[in-house]
Amino acid sequence: MKNKTILVTNDDGIFADGIYWLWEAVKDFGNVLVVAPDTEKSAVGHAITIANPLRTKKIHRNGGFSGYAVNGTPADCVKIAVRSILDFPPDLVISGINLGANVGINVIYSGTVSAATEGIILGIPSIAVSIDSHRPGDFRPAMEITRKAIRNVLEHGLPKGTLLNLNIPDLSTEKIKGVQITTQGSAFFKDSFEKREDPRGKNYYWMTGHLSDPDLPGNTDNQALKNGFISITPIHYNLTNKSFLKDLEAWKFNE
Amino acid sequence: MKNKTILVTNDDGIFADGIYWLWEAVKDFGNVLVVAPDTEKSAVGHAITIANPLRTKKIHRNGGFSGYAVNGTPADCVKIAVRSILDFPPDLVISGINLGANVGINVIYSGTVSAATEGIILGIPSIAVSIDSHRPGDFRPAMEITRKAIRNVLEHGLPKGTLLNLNIPDLSTEKIKGVQITTQGSAFFKDSFEKREDPRGKNYYWMTGHLSDPDLPGNTDNQALKNGFISITPIHYNLTNKSFLKDLEAWKFNE
Repeated sequence: MKNKTILVTNDDGIFADGIYWLWEAVKDFGNVLVVAPDTEKSAVGHAITIANPLRTKKIHRNGGFSGYAVNGTPADCVKIAVRSILDFPPDLVISGINLGANVGINVIYSGTVSAATEGIILGIPSIAVSIDSHRPGDFRPAMEITRKAIRNVLEHGLPKGTLLNLNIPDLSTEKIKGVQITTQGSAFFKDSFEKREDPRGKNYYWMTGHLSDPDLPGNTDNQALKNGFISITPIHYNLTNKSFLKDLEAWKFNE
Repeated sequence: MKNKTILVTNDDGIFADGIYWLWEAVKDFGNVLVVAPDTEKSAVGHAITIANPLRTKKIHRNGGFSGYAVNGTPADCVKIAVRSILDFPPDLVISGINLGANVGINVIYSGTVSAATEGIILGIPSIAVSIDSHRPGDFRPAMEITRKAIRNVLEHGLPKGTLLNLNIPDLSTEKIKGVQITTQGSAFFKDSFEKREDPRGKNYYWMTGHLSDPDLPGNTDNQALKNGFISITPIHYNLTNKSFLKDLEAWKFNE
């Protein structure tokens, strides 16, 4: 299990708490390279930076890791680490530990998951890790399941183009009921825009809202969290709705 | 077919050529509202703006449409149009016409597709339209297939959470061989970073690369384009790799 090269990244920035604890969780597996955004990049989806140049800056966190801060998105960080900083691809990409669950529709908006998606696009087994709280009481359950997931991935491998999306309830290890293998559920962000007036009398809007879950109790990611389980969802990036292909063939496009 | 409300957006910005021709193509279907980014927002993926306020500005294009420019991403534009600008949801969201194909892995990075994805998240049938060229000779084939797609969607409806991703070869109507219903293929962006030195002696990087397609001839999106066909792919946003769920159940996470 030793001497693997692990690329660690996140979307909250290289100075976030979550990435420190992720580094702490994985550092015994081998050589860990930390490459992460220089500032917070939440809800960036799978953005990449093509219109502006990227810069990397070596940083050191006292009592912790050295790494590279990048003026780009989580997906940029994975690309530049694999293509420019490392001489060979890492054995694993791990992204997190994010504050806030990435379940249901949030998987689409998530910078944390997008970094892991970029990992699998580049052919590297990848894991995204999030805690269901913006002020988690304890990072240890997330650290523990991340280490278990890594051991399993190193033992079994992952199917090509598939990552594991881990979401951990904000509970102590004793109170967590176990692990559920889940599907991405239908939980969605019920958003609205709060209209305000700036000091010059011009209007502006803040996006606001909350996650709403229409799913019945079952094996979805958010339902697992709600019931006190760690959720593990296998995620890929093929977006074809295959069940609709046959019906669509019958539509009249060629007349 | 008349008197539908259609929301038109894009990722190249409200002053791009493609959105003008899209408006021209759809304006006879009813009331068209154009809400698009105030500047180019390519490769933003499914980014949304939560850390900064959004502003909308009414604009008018001479000889064309009035609409709203937003200082945000394509997904922001759809959200704010549906939640704040319109009093009721539109019947359709159409995004484009993008310059450059959105096939294979580019579906993930695409701002054009993300706007249509936001449409289906909000429960509105949606279509993304792209031409396989950055300097298309003729917008008419794209305009024509967009109108056909709209007529079909209004007649048949789309499954919940599914959009149509249209990609059109840069050929004259006579040279286009027809329409193929396709799956999202494996074409990927073979990227690298070009290292340069700025005038102060500091390094920076430009992301660069080209699309590479490992797929064999068949029914994928990029292969259809290569063979002179219009590609129509049904896209959803459920990323679960269902075929891997059973194997993953057998992994040891609960010990």
